[in-house]
Amino acid sequence: MKPTSDTPSVIQPERGDQVKRQKWWGWGADGDKPYAIHNKPKFPPFAKEVLGVDILAKELVDPRFEDLDVPESQLSDQLRDALVAAVGQENVGTDAELRVIHSYGKGVRDLVRVRRGQLGRVPDAVVYPGSTDEVQAVMSAALEANAVVIPYGGGSNIVAALEAEPGETRQVLSVNMGRMNKVLEIDETAQIALIQAGALGPDMEEQLNQQGWTLGHFPDSFVWSTVGGWIATRSSGSQSDKYGDIAEVTRGLQMVLPADEGAEPRAQVLELSPLPSYSSGPSVREMVLGSEGRLGIITQAWMQVHRLPEAREVQAYFYPNYEAGLKAAELIAHSDVQPMMLRVSDANETKFSMANGSANKSKKSHYSNLAVRKLMEAKGWDLDQICISFVGFEGSPVHVRYAKSVVNKIVRAQGGLNVGKGPGTLFDQKKYDIPYIRDFLLNIGIPADVSETATPWSRTVEMHRETVKAATKAWEETGHRGFIMCHLSHSYHAGACQYFTFAIADASDESMKTYDHVKRAVQQSFVEHGGTVSHHHGVGEEHSPWMEQDISPAGVHIQRKLFEGVDPGNNLNPGKIVHDGKPGISSNSEDA
Amino acid sequence: MKPTSDTPSVIQPERGDQVKRQKWWGWGADGDKPYAIHNKPKFPPFAKEVLGVDILAKELVDPRFEDLDVPESQLSDQLRDALVAAVGQENVGTDAELRVIHSYGKGVRDLVRVRRGQLGRVPDAVVYPGSTDEVQAVMSAALEANAVVIPYGGGSNIVAALEAEPGETRQVLSVNMGRMNKVLEIDETAQIALIQAGALGPDMEEQLNQQGWTLGHFPDSFVWSTVGGWIATRSSGSQSDKYGDIAEVTRGLQMVLPADEGAEPRAQVLELSPLPSYSSGPSVREMVLGSEGRLGIITQAWMQVHRLPEAREVQAYFYPNYEAGLKAAELIAHSDVQPMMLRVSDANETKFSMANGSANKSKKSHYSNLAVRKLMEAKGWDLDQICISFVGFEGSPVHVRYAKSVVNKIVRAQGGLNVGKGPGTLFDQKKYDIPYIRDFLLNIGIPADVSETATPWSRTVEMHRETVKAATKAWEETGHRGFIMCHLSHSYHAGACQYFTFAIADASDESMKTYDHVKRAVQQSFVEHGGTVSHHHGVGEEHSPWMEQDISPAGVHIQRKLFEGVDPGNNLNPGKIVHDGKPGISSNSEDA
Repeated sequence: MKPTSDTPSVIQPERGDQVKRQKWWGWGADGDKPYAIHNKPKFPPFAKEVLGVDILAKELVDPRFEDLDVPESQLSDQLRDALVAAVGQENVGTDAELRVIHSYGKGVRDLVRVRRGQLGRVPDAVVYPGSTDEVQAVMSAALEANAVVIPYGGGSNIVAALEAEPGETRQVLSVNMGRMNKVLEIDETAQIALIQAGALGPDMEEQLNQQGWTLGHFPDSFVWSTVGGWIATRSSGSQSDKYGDIAEVTRGLQMVLPADEGAEPRAQVLELSPLPSYSSGPSVREMVLGSEGRLGIITQAWMQVHRLPEAREVQAYFYPNYEAGLKAAELIAHSDVQPMMLRVSDANETKFSMANGSANKSKKSHYSNLAVRKLMEAKGWDLDQICISFVGFEGSPVHVRYAKSVVNKIVRAQGGLNVGKGPGTLFDQKKYDIPYIRDFLLNIGIPADVSETATPWSRTVEMHRETVKAATKAWEETGHRGFIMCHLSHSYHAGACQYFTFAIADASDESMKTYDHVKRAVQQSFVEHGGTVSHHHGVGEEHSPWMEQDISPAGVHIQRKLFEGVDPGNNLNPGKIVHDGKPGISSNSEDA
Repeated sequence: MKPTSDTPSVIQPERGDQVKRQKWWGWGADGDKPYAIHNKPKFPPFAKEVLGVDILAKELVDPRFEDLDVPESQLSDQLRDALVAAVGQENVGTDAELRVIHSYGKGVRDLVRVRRGQLGRVPDAVVYPGSTDEVQAVMSAALEANAVVIPYGGGSNIVAALEAEPGETRQVLSVNMGRMNKVLEIDETAQIALIQAGALGPDMEEQLNQQGWTLGHFPDSFVWSTVGGWIATRSSGSQSDKYGDIAEVTRGLQMVLPADEGAEPRAQVLELSPLPSYSSGPSVREMVLGSEGRLGIITQAWMQVHRLPEAREVQAYFYPNYEAGLKAAELIAHSDVQPMMLRVSDANETKFSMANGSANKSKKSHYSNLAVRKLMEAKGWDLDQICISFVGFEGSPVHVRYAKSVVNKIVRAQGGLNVGKGPGTLFDQKKYDIPYIRDFLLNIGIPADVSETATPWSRTVEMHRETVKAATKAWEETGHRGFIMCHLSHSYHAGACQYFTFAIADASDESMKTYDHVKRAVQQSFVEHGGTVSHHHGVGEEHSPWMEQDISPAGVHIQRKLFEGVDPGNNLNPGKIVHDGKPGISSNSEDA
């Protein structure tokens, strides 16, 4: 049952150059279809109304790689030889585009910088290990050379966790885990699967589905994020209310980390067996979770899996306002049933969703929308305040019926309206589209971003109200228009996560200053109203300035002591999570 | 919502000498009724059969404190003055009995040692802080004097986590948290309560119940364990399948820990807000959970609470053998329902339970037992192999009916037999009795102990078989008889906890050598068959030798770096969790 350190020999690892990669300037692979703006008749007028921007005015042209000035790799012959000995020639990449792709994640700030040719400290090599042993050899070589090691999964990070520190003088290696992409073993009795850290969501889920299983982990980044990345950031997905956040799903794992001083080899392997629960001191598993590369490189993990459900259904509901939807969610979370998804959009996000409908939506759905509208008017609802909610149910058909009856009763008691399965089906189809809309807006100069937090139920209304207020005040201070919308995305016994999306109508060269001013206001509102800096995107460099306000100075002190103890040379993804006062992204960007 | 560092002024803290305490030589308070052996007609013949011991042969006499040779307190005037300044004269105790009570927990080894006058390193003072500020002042004074600080809750620890290291030359303080015993606040919307760390189970639950709430945490030690102790050991209780292990229940907390080098005051306060989930780096909350005093003193915590359930019911089932019961438990854990309790006793524990029945059990229950017996015989069951199981249900009446129907179907499919609510009611009444039986046996020289582990479902049968085999081999090697029994106590998606109880028929002066040989065999079996050293009792000094086999050498390395970083002077409960090679309890006890 203990995870083994070798990949079974039957699995042929791919070469580094065969690992799927995103394009250097945006979300998704080269050649992905862009956001289908021409099939969204309601979206341009909506954007005009809320941001005052004519989003069809500008012709969209992909940026050209030739316009970039990419610094040379500073990889020494000695380190190159050691890496080649560790993983083979074909798995050590130094070409310019590869290195640029690995310079950043895919946050809006990352994309703005890379498109503007502000490349920062581009890594000197991209290394593709194929096994835990190879990761250990790579880390040993890196530590021997006093190089910096940054683990890289799907590259979808949006909190500046994948980049080297500005001005880093040591050699920088980006360790791409993409060759380690297999489901190695399924324990059908314990319902756990041993999965390599570099497996992208769809590849992993396909391997599980083929044998009748699912991980049930579907973050918005699903297509371009990996098991290891989810663990390293304490990820959460759209069905985590049922399946659990990744911290609850991860049972055992393997991580390569620096060995004790003077030991050979210089890197060692942590092996945590898959255990349902334990009382063996401060949880090492929970130290690895959320460590964002600062403690080591996660290579594989035993994850809880579930049989594909017999029945699955997403029901849609309308509420007269967001507060009613939040109250219903709270009561559902405290009821005897646990939906697999419980999502409530605020009025702005409800309008956005409606504006984002396709032209080819069936007439039936159009007519039923009209009927629903009439019903809401008859109830005296202010149509400007209505909120849509999706509740997902899974399990045996009997259980789905039972859970639905409990939820429907709660919804009715809060004045909500069940509108059936139609909108939910549509939601399921579009759930991974948001980054393409973000990139579309960015192409016309409009920065848009997301930020999420969790609070106790007693503070959800306050958090929403105050964060919208703080963001609005912030963009008004810059003299630009902005838009912010939100949904309750995850529910727990003690509270919920609210997920904010905002856009700023500043297409000037100063747009990052404007954006930054708003983003800071949002984060500051989070920590001032009982929330965390992040519910599931992580800290990186981006959120580190708020860590002392989140977990108190003593909490940061404890994390720092942990990092310093495990990584005394500061070789592992330095500068992330713990803010060390050196110039980082957040403080830099006023000048970007 | 942030925990405040001051106790509200309306709550009058008690004086240290008013804090409830256990007797120095055994479980429970002075004057507690002993195990009612004379009302248990079946128990003596059972003990004779399985251990070959006549448990009624010896007259039981309480040990006398006057027989002990208690070393003088080595508290310096300087440290005494600082402590008195911090908490007041009446909350600094140095009398001999008080110090002896605080020398050990209540493990069988502890009670044997204390009764034999082997007092080890008795603390020099017992300090009773009444607020977080006072804890901070106490720790600052202790660090200033380079003293050792050992937090003390209800004193029920059984893994040697409350004692100073043998030969400790520095001053030793036991910090009794008993004055901090209040439920400070209930957030009814978020269903969380702010509870002081020193609140004993019954006191805390009474304060919650009065307002219609429950924590739902009922470990066997409930009567003599505290909220802080539960957090420090990652506790789990008999209803944790529904309410969650303490690690899942604890949402925010406050802990006093050493400040950074050179800072004044020398101690600082960690403040973690109550959050339902978060992605703010390696979880500091999870570092505090299970820290057993090595990182600081937990002072209060925000814990999830629940409304007292409308309906509650414990159903009993019989299975033809333990394997059938384990399989049913696995299927229930993977079903759509979550019972609040799921417990399956093996054949030996089933016999023990039946032998432990009171003489005054109603005739009805006796007759129905006979009827059940006939039914099992008719089914062709081997009555020597039958296993009893308890499944608890809570929630709305509709939910209880629904969950029961799902469970009953699974039980029937595994050949199990529902025998109604009677035995479950009896079980509920007796659940905190086990330590008194243990003490009764100890009075006649028979050591008995408990040890529990968790594994994936795929290894529960193997773990049970191999651990029973290993324990049996071990006592046979010593030439004494022994008895071991087990129940599945906690179920999770990925696996379960099995809880072993064993007794050794060695009443000689060498009994601790014999006991130790068996205890080691049990622990070794745990780590060799995919289990953890402990599911909820913790590590202490007792289990530390197996930590490298549990979480791998790299895991222990990470824990050690954390402890060294946070507590560079090694003042906080030294020697616990991480085995440092110095002579500790486990290695000592061969000579005890």
